[in-house]
Amino acid sequence: MLFNFIPREFNFFDLFEKQASYAVEAAKFFKELTAKGEIDEEAMNKMRLIEHQGDEAAHTIMDQLNKTFITPFDREDIFSLAKELDDVIDMINTIISRLAIYKLTGVNKNLVDFSLVIEESAQGILCAVKGMRNVKNLKIVKDACVEINRLENVGDSMRDTMLAKLFDTEKDPIAVIKWKEIYQDCETVLDICEDVAHVVSSILVKQA
Amino acid sequence: MLFNFIPREFNFFDLFEKQASYAVEAAKFFKELTAKGEIDEEAMNKMRLIEHQGDEAAHTIMDQLNKTFITPFDREDIFSLAKELDDVIDMINTIISRLAIYKLTGVNKNLVDFSLVIEESAQGILCAVKGMRNVKNLKIVKDACVEINRLENVGDSMRDTMLAKLFDTEKDPIAVIKWKEIYQDCETVLDICEDVAHVVSSILVKQA
Amino acid sequence: MLFNFIPREFNFFDLFEKQASYAVEAAKFFKELTAKGEIDEEAMNKMRLIEHQGDEAAHTIMDQLNKTFITPFDREDIFSLAKELDDVIDMINTIISRLAIYKLTGVNKNLVDFSLVIEESAQGILCAVKGMRNVKNLKIVKDACVEINRLENVGDSMRDTMLAKLFDTEKDPIAVIKWKEIYQDCETVLDICEDVAHVVSSILVKQA
Repeated sequence: MLFNFIPREFNFFDLFEKQASYAVEAAKFFKELTAKGEIDEEAMNKMRLIEHQGDEAAHTIMDQLNKTFITPFDREDIFSLAKELDDVIDMINTIISRLAIYKLTGVNKNLVDFSLVIEESAQGILCAVKGMRNVKNLKIVKDACVEINRLENVGDSMRDTMLAKLFDTEKDPIAVIKWKEIYQDCETVLDICEDVAHVVSSILVKQA
Repeated sequence: MLFNFIPREFNFFDLFEKQASYAVEAAKFFKELTAKGEIDEEAMNKMRLIEHQGDEAAHTIMDQLNKTFITPFDREDIFSLAKELDDVIDMINTIISRLAIYKLTGVNKNLVDFSLVIEESAQGILCAVKGMRNVKNLKIVKDACVEINRLENVGDSMRDTMLAKLFDTEKDPIAVIKWKEIYQDCETVLDICEDVAHVVSSILVKQA
Repeated sequence: MLFNFIPREFNFFDLFEKQASYAVEAAKFFKELTAKGEIDEEAMNKMRLIEHQGDEAAHTIMDQLNKTFITPFDREDIFSLAKELDDVIDMINTIISRLAIYKLTGVNKNLVDFSLVIEESAQGILCAVKGMRNVKNLKIVKDACVEINRLENVGDSMRDTMLAKLFDTEKDPIAVIKWKEIYQDCETVLDICEDVAHVVSSILVKQA
């Protein structure tokens, strides 16, 4: 149909910014919960809502992508960016839900530390995504991506240190199973943030 | 070579339907085994055969894709669909093989329940893939995809409930390690089924 | 910019060969460490260096890919090949770092066996990647890919046998957690090598 060949006025940038905002919201909420050391039904519902809103933004992007002939940058990059941003929110949701299922209550200093790094990285993503609107922001976007990469390295050593200590001190195997997964999940959030930064960087290089 | 530019009469739809049928066969066989609560060498061989046949269908699709210039829909969608269908069968194969390696014999009600949802989802896939042949089936395919998404959500809660109960009641850490992995694997099958539904939906949107 | 449309004299083949050489170097070093049964700070640093050099080769390929208009083969294949080769090195790095974090010292016969298969597979990759320069090498490349696939199957049974034995004999759940992950990681290296072989095969088919 000819219909599909007409460029839409659809604004991908608005939608990506929306998705990135939900990622920041999820990260902030995760930080709150780790500081509180308790996850109740209300908290689970709030997180599910954020995740659901993020999902809807992602779906809108995919739908528009499939219907739009001319896009501001490569189709596969749009697809990847929407997918990776969605994965950031999903992974935070997974961690919160695991903490609840495993009944891991009480403030865990490690988790608090991790949540701070995750929030910083999510803020970096929002900054990078916002900057993509205009080539003039190249330096800002680049700096944000470098920072996200740095935070991923920070997360790597945090996880390694935490796991080494966990295996050294925790004698309850069930507790080891639970915390090992949670720490690895936290690091995975930062990995996915780095993937977002890679997509953004690659879009920038092509547009330069 | 000019040869490569001539459209082949190759029927991708037949091959995808074949792959989806193997996925259903694998799911049905998994259901049988969970009802029996026992996996012997004969069962392992039967599952390996299904997986091998699925592999061959996938390879044929990839080979044809690489050699065909004109395809019924986007090359990357053909690639993804073949890959995801293969992953469904592989994951079921992995679970069955893990049950054998971990010597998890006896009927486990949870596993029986999961196998029923997995079979439903595989049937949904077969229905969606069959429907792709003709744009007239749009409604049928869409409904199947919605159902597959619903089943993925069902699987999510099933896994969460099962894990919570496992950590609450199972005091043997080795048993926790084994069953935790199996329940998570079962949910992963439904995740991959959902990925299949996403590819099918995206193909439909582009053709609409 | 017109600049981007001028084909560069950049040699992707040199870079891929470099990456594959780092994969072989990582695999050889892993073999050395398993034979020694000890990982000290010096070993960690050496592995980090190999991984860093591999990273740089991958980044150079991605940068060039983004800036080059005409490439020797499909852009997505170049991207996948660089990504998968990087993943091989990363995974070996992960295993070595886990062995250190989990304080798994002493020679483990299983690990020695796995490291030999991993080295063979990495050598197969180097052979396949070297052969890609010239269509005349088709047979050599194909044979290398077949061998890599065979080694992946070997790895599958090795892991299954090792896990079955681990669960049969190891009564310390913490040790089960550690070794289970290490054996699965070793098999994952071979999976990624197989992914490399798939990309190489698919490039060959398209060029034939």
